[in-house]
Amino acid sequence: MRPSKRPSDAMREVSLTRGVSRHAEGSCLVKFGDTHVLCTASLEERVPGWLKGSGKGWVTAEYGMLPRATHERMRREAASGKQSGRTQEIQRLVGRSLRAVIDLQALGERQITVDCDVVQADGGTRTAAITGGFVALADCLAWMEGRGMIDRRKVIRDHVAAISCGIHNGTPVLDLDYVEDSAAETDANFVMTGSGGIVEIQGTAEGAPFSQDELLALMALAKKGIGELVEHQKRVLSEAAA
Amino acid sequence: MRPSKRPSDAMREVSLTRGVSRHAEGSCLVKFGDTHVLCTASLEERVPGWLKGSGKGWVTAEYGMLPRATHERMRREAASGKQSGRTQEIQRLVGRSLRAVIDLQALGERQITVDCDVVQADGGTRTAAITGGFVALADCLAWMEGRGMIDRRKVIRDHVAAISCGIHNGTPVLDLDYVEDSAAETDANFVMTGSGGIVEIQGTAEGAPFSQDELLALMALAKKGIGELVEHQKRVLSEAAA
Amino acid sequence: MRPSKRPSDAMREVSLTRGVSRHAEGSCLVKFGDTHVLCTASLEERVPGWLKGSGKGWVTAEYGMLPRATHERMRREAASGKQSGRTQEIQRLVGRSLRAVIDLQALGERQITVDCDVVQADGGTRTAAITGGFVALADCLAWMEGRGMIDRRKVIRDHVAAISCGIHNGTPVLDLDYVEDSAAETDANFVMTGSGGIVEIQGTAEGAPFSQDELLALMALAKKGIGELVEHQKRVLSEAAA
Amino acid sequence: MRPSKRPSDAMREVSLTRGVSRHAEGSCLVKFGDTHVLCTASLEERVPGWLKGSGKGWVTAEYGMLPRATHERMRREAASGKQSGRTQEIQRLVGRSLRAVIDLQALGERQITVDCDVVQADGGTRTAAITGGFVALADCLAWMEGRGMIDRRKVIRDHVAAISCGIHNGTPVLDLDYVEDSAAETDANFVMTGSGGIVEIQGTAEGAPFSQDELLALMALAKKGIGELVEHQKRVLSEAAA
Amino acid sequence: MRPSKRPSDAMREVSLTRGVSRHAEGSCLVKFGDTHVLCTASLEERVPGWLKGSGKGWVTAEYGMLPRATHERMRREAASGKQSGRTQEIQRLVGRSLRAVIDLQALGERQITVDCDVVQADGGTRTAAITGGFVALADCLAWMEGRGMIDRRKVIRDHVAAISCGIHNGTPVLDLDYVEDSAAETDANFVMTGSGGIVEIQGTAEGAPFSQDELLALMALAKKGIGELVEHQKRVLSEAAA
Amino acid sequence: MRPSKRPSDAMREVSLTRGVSRHAEGSCLVKFGDTHVLCTASLEERVPGWLKGSGKGWVTAEYGMLPRATHERMRREAASGKQSGRTQEIQRLVGRSLRAVIDLQALGERQITVDCDVVQADGGTRTAAITGGFVALADCLAWMEGRGMIDRRKVIRDHVAAISCGIHNGTPVLDLDYVEDSAAETDANFVMTGSGGIVEIQGTAEGAPFSQDELLALMALAKKGIGELVEHQKRVLSEAAA
Repeated sequence: MRPSKRPSDAMREVSLTRGVSRHAEGSCLVKFGDTHVLCTASLEERVPGWLKGSGKGWVTAEYGMLPRATHERMRREAASGKQSGRTQEIQRLVGRSLRAVIDLQALGERQITVDCDVVQADGGTRTAAITGGFVALADCLAWMEGRGMIDRRKVIRDHVAAISCGIHNGTPVLDLDYVEDSAAETDANFVMTGSGGIVEIQGTAEGAPFSQDELLALMALAKKGIGELVEHQKRVLSEAAA
Repeated sequence: MRPSKRPSDAMREVSLTRGVSRHAEGSCLVKFGDTHVLCTASLEERVPGWLKGSGKGWVTAEYGMLPRATHERMRREAASGKQSGRTQEIQRLVGRSLRAVIDLQALGERQITVDCDVVQADGGTRTAAITGGFVALADCLAWMEGRGMIDRRKVIRDHVAAISCGIHNGTPVLDLDYVEDSAAETDANFVMTGSGGIVEIQGTAEGAPFSQDELLALMALAKKGIGELVEHQKRVLSEAAA
Repeated sequence: MRPSKRPSDAMREVSLTRGVSRHAEGSCLVKFGDTHVLCTASLEERVPGWLKGSGKGWVTAEYGMLPRATHERMRREAASGKQSGRTQEIQRLVGRSLRAVIDLQALGERQITVDCDVVQADGGTRTAAITGGFVALADCLAWMEGRGMIDRRKVIRDHVAAISCGIHNGTPVLDLDYVEDSAAETDANFVMTGSGGIVEIQGTAEGAPFSQDELLALMALAKKGIGELVEHQKRVLSEAAA
Repeated sequence: MRPSKRPSDAMREVSLTRGVSRHAEGSCLVKFGDTHVLCTASLEERVPGWLKGSGKGWVTAEYGMLPRATHERMRREAASGKQSGRTQEIQRLVGRSLRAVIDLQALGERQITVDCDVVQADGGTRTAAITGGFVALADCLAWMEGRGMIDRRKVIRDHVAAISCGIHNGTPVLDLDYVEDSAAETDANFVMTGSGGIVEIQGTAEGAPFSQDELLALMALAKKGIGELVEHQKRVLSEAAA
Repeated sequence: MRPSKRPSDAMREVSLTRGVSRHAEGSCLVKFGDTHVLCTASLEERVPGWLKGSGKGWVTAEYGMLPRATHERMRREAASGKQSGRTQEIQRLVGRSLRAVIDLQALGERQITVDCDVVQADGGTRTAAITGGFVALADCLAWMEGRGMIDRRKVIRDHVAAISCGIHNGTPVLDLDYVEDSAAETDANFVMTGSGGIVEIQGTAEGAPFSQDELLALMALAKKGIGELVEHQKRVLSEAAA
Repeated sequence: MRPSKRPSDAMREVSLTRGVSRHAEGSCLVKFGDTHVLCTASLEERVPGWLKGSGKGWVTAEYGMLPRATHERMRREAASGKQSGRTQEIQRLVGRSLRAVIDLQALGERQITVDCDVVQADGGTRTAAITGGFVALADCLAWMEGRGMIDRRKVIRDHVAAISCGIHNGTPVLDLDYVEDSAAETDANFVMTGSGGIVEIQGTAEGAPFSQDELLALMALAKKGIGELVEHQKRVLSEAAA
């Protein structure tokens, strides 16, 4: 039995709440159980220097954690004067994942920044950030379409969502919370599209190395979980915007 | 008529929600209308170097804004590598204000850090931070008392809350929102205790200088507003903790 | 009796010496007793990005302390790699205070930077900086007028000066030195114009909160002190430039 | 045909030269074709604070690139004042990979830092760094064993090496050089042990998402490549130290 | 004729004023013509980590320029977040030069920091800093001797002073001011002791390389100038302290 | 007898290997005994802002040390977030030395950056950097001439090389290694041109001050050594490029 008492293929309760920010062009508060991430998508009429004049736009992500999102208070990155390696690794992953389903040409020469700020952490913050960040991004694109700036169908090529899996006590399990993650022998994050394509896979042996069979077992769980997340995204995005 | 349509001595709707963080010893989500600040109080069994061995504790505050808390996205301070002068000014003010009602000797050699993170901004974030930060701090002290660490009545000497006032279109008004603040000729922040003592006053002429009579008019409004905020604090703190 | 033996409404000896810098367009060495601040005003034919093309100019201030301006040597901010919160707070205050009496439109699209460097500190450095910074700024504007760049009378709308007051041992006193400041129960800085308007007021309870009556007593002292400072400014500015 | 003209399952010429640093306890210059990485292992009799008193040691890695290791000169990270997200991501990966085959308890309370500095880059620098870093680490442990500090067999549990694979022009290929990497649709890095266990897998879709079958094809190539690298490591480590 | 109209072997007017800082253990305002440097010596009962327990003390120097010490305002180093290479080079030189005449063993385990802040610059700031820094240091040692902490004669082994020379318009000249320095073909700084030993020599060809004969001509000028500076130091140090 | 057993006027074995970088326009691995420095020259079609439109080019240098180039591992400057004062001092010296033999007008509005990275250190890294940096720079200019960009003979006015000398155990010796440098009473670095002109001289008394005669003895050694280095440069540059 895993610590969370969940069946090995069960995710935590997921919620995706749109329109939580008064100012952002798109926003989503995503919860994977006790992991809560506030995602906002901000449109700017500028692109990074290396894209100027290219006709192409850019989607990027930033990630942060409130100091007391975690069990012990962590030092505020703004006060320590730099973002940790972990923070940079995660925000690069979120940005790549979102760009994987966006047609930057169809977006036009503009930048959308998706900020993912962890309000409360209990494992899986990067996968929640990708899943909720997609909803915020989609709403930003809807906002743009409403103003005649883009054809949203051309810009978004597919859904994208993410989940973590791990081998806990010898058993492959879906959607690790913090306690499970700390004890897992192997930990893997999967990012996939709505049509089941793999966008990113990151698997790490925390203790002993893992085998190809174990990786495939984790991937099977991830497919199930991401399928459910994409359904969830579709359901909330089909509702009228907040 | 002020832009918010409120009478000149009316505050925005205020809410103080306790227990919003699973991890922090005390927490409060404070809303002054569309200004939302998440306050957490974190206890640490250490003090700054200059207090070691003194038997006295410390209360400090940190302040931050999510990048899209504002109408236009602002650069993330963790990414730019430093906290702005404005951020430092505010967090110093919040820390001083909270310490004004705390007996650091009775707290004992421990530090409580009150993090005030602005989730959404619409003017008055520093006054909301002080008002909500007090509630988070009080709950942290209750948590400590529950573990026999302190006698809470000796540590908290009084309530503390804060409000901004300003002269808008020639009229003194209470609790400026962003639009009013931008247009105010004079802007003043007041921090007062439950018993009506002044802890801090910061008044600034944005355009023409102001007179002593105008300052007194603003102070009268502030007393009324802070009186209401302290009542609100007392009401929510008298309820069973979340 | 206050530690300085001064009557409660007496300032320290003040001196304002113009023309102390060979290079700056305007300069003033200001002394409030043992507090000595070197102020220089530097003209640059550029403005911050957000003012480009606006036709308006800008006045800004920077503040620093020599490492051994204080009783104990402090770490050099250039060596520690950042300006402290206190430094930023003060330089923002000095800049706002000076801009309060300047017509930025009449200045034209140029920037004047007033550097206030504390050579020796004994309390009240920010108020000395504002008072001496105004003289340096006025001389810079005279220098510009001498070259036909501006009409000085249109640019300077009034004088501005500042003083600190505090409640020491229960008595309101004017112009705190370091020893008095350390022991004061309440400490307030006032910035006022030559015509008696209030530009900025910052009052802080260091111990017990203070009352409105106490604030008014401090303000009465401040008016007297600032009146004397403005007279002093007028006297030295009426002399031929150094 | 891939740009390098190599068969799809052929690696570039690999060389591992031990003893290239006069000062380091272990060192290895690793070449994967035109990618050259200088790896040194440095022993220090101290551990990070959180391991003090634990009896356990630590292995960590740092990564850097000489400014003109690349086709266009890149800004020196020491001059820009921070390590890029990419640099931090890579050095965290190298450290995790090396620790995966080390018994930190058997190492004792000491730290070994493996510095991987890219002298010339042509794709695959991180995989070369892991492969060569292992040799430097093994020689450092031999140096320690020669001084009676450890039992090397207990400290090193297995070999570890790494290789990149990718899908280029629709074909899975082994060991991408820079030109191939830039054009690959999918890019994956594999870190495996001598006994074939997976330590880390990082797969990224650069264009269209990839399928599980494609991932398995890449993994088959990686197994072949890493097998050859481990044989190479064993061969050079069996020779007398330089 | 050199721009300053001085004979080739004539220095600018030099003044050394002791006791200019109320707080510092030793201080000196040094003027070489229009170059003015404020030097303070600060005693601290601590040494750098690598000297702890050695019984030896340390003398170090820091250097800074007020932003408008120069003809054009320079950016404040505290604001730009780092000290320039030039600043670091100079403060290292000043520290080495002062240590060359100090017996660190006889000083005992304490640190003296000599801060050299350029209030006005007109060439030769580093040589003025060394010459005035020595006076501040000597007064700090006198202060210590007055409290029975050291035997000053054992700590100070000799005087030290510095001067710049250069080849201007083909002629070797002594003590370059800014205009001469900018036009000099060769520029050399000399640091020498009271007994004529060379502590440091730094010669740089600004245009064409220079010859050994030219270097010797510059050195002859430097000996003369430093001899005068040392006499000046002795004269002011023989007076009762301010 | 000096520790290295070399005669007092003998240099270590020197090697200059051209064409060691696949990407750089010019490169040279220079060895002075166990001191190894990798020099690359990188051409960029841009100049610093203050040269734009001047028609003149720029040559600059950067210097770094791999963390384990030294006996004890040093902290990586990219990780500590800044370059040390020593690093900046050296790279400024290297840049000045190289510019001394270059006609910046004839170079045209382009920048060449010479990166000098110490792969292994055993004393004299800055003199090796200058000597090898010149070869890399010469090859970069040859590369440019081959593309019709410049007339190399007009750009390079002379050779430049550097060597350190010191007084060890009372005897002037040439080309100090690390052990000798640590024990030397006086240490001087000389930079000279092929025709024997002095570009830069930096002499420092590490213990007692030194005399003019000692300086001349060191200079005589330096002339001999630099003469040999220039011959070496000419020999390798006369060979066909790698």
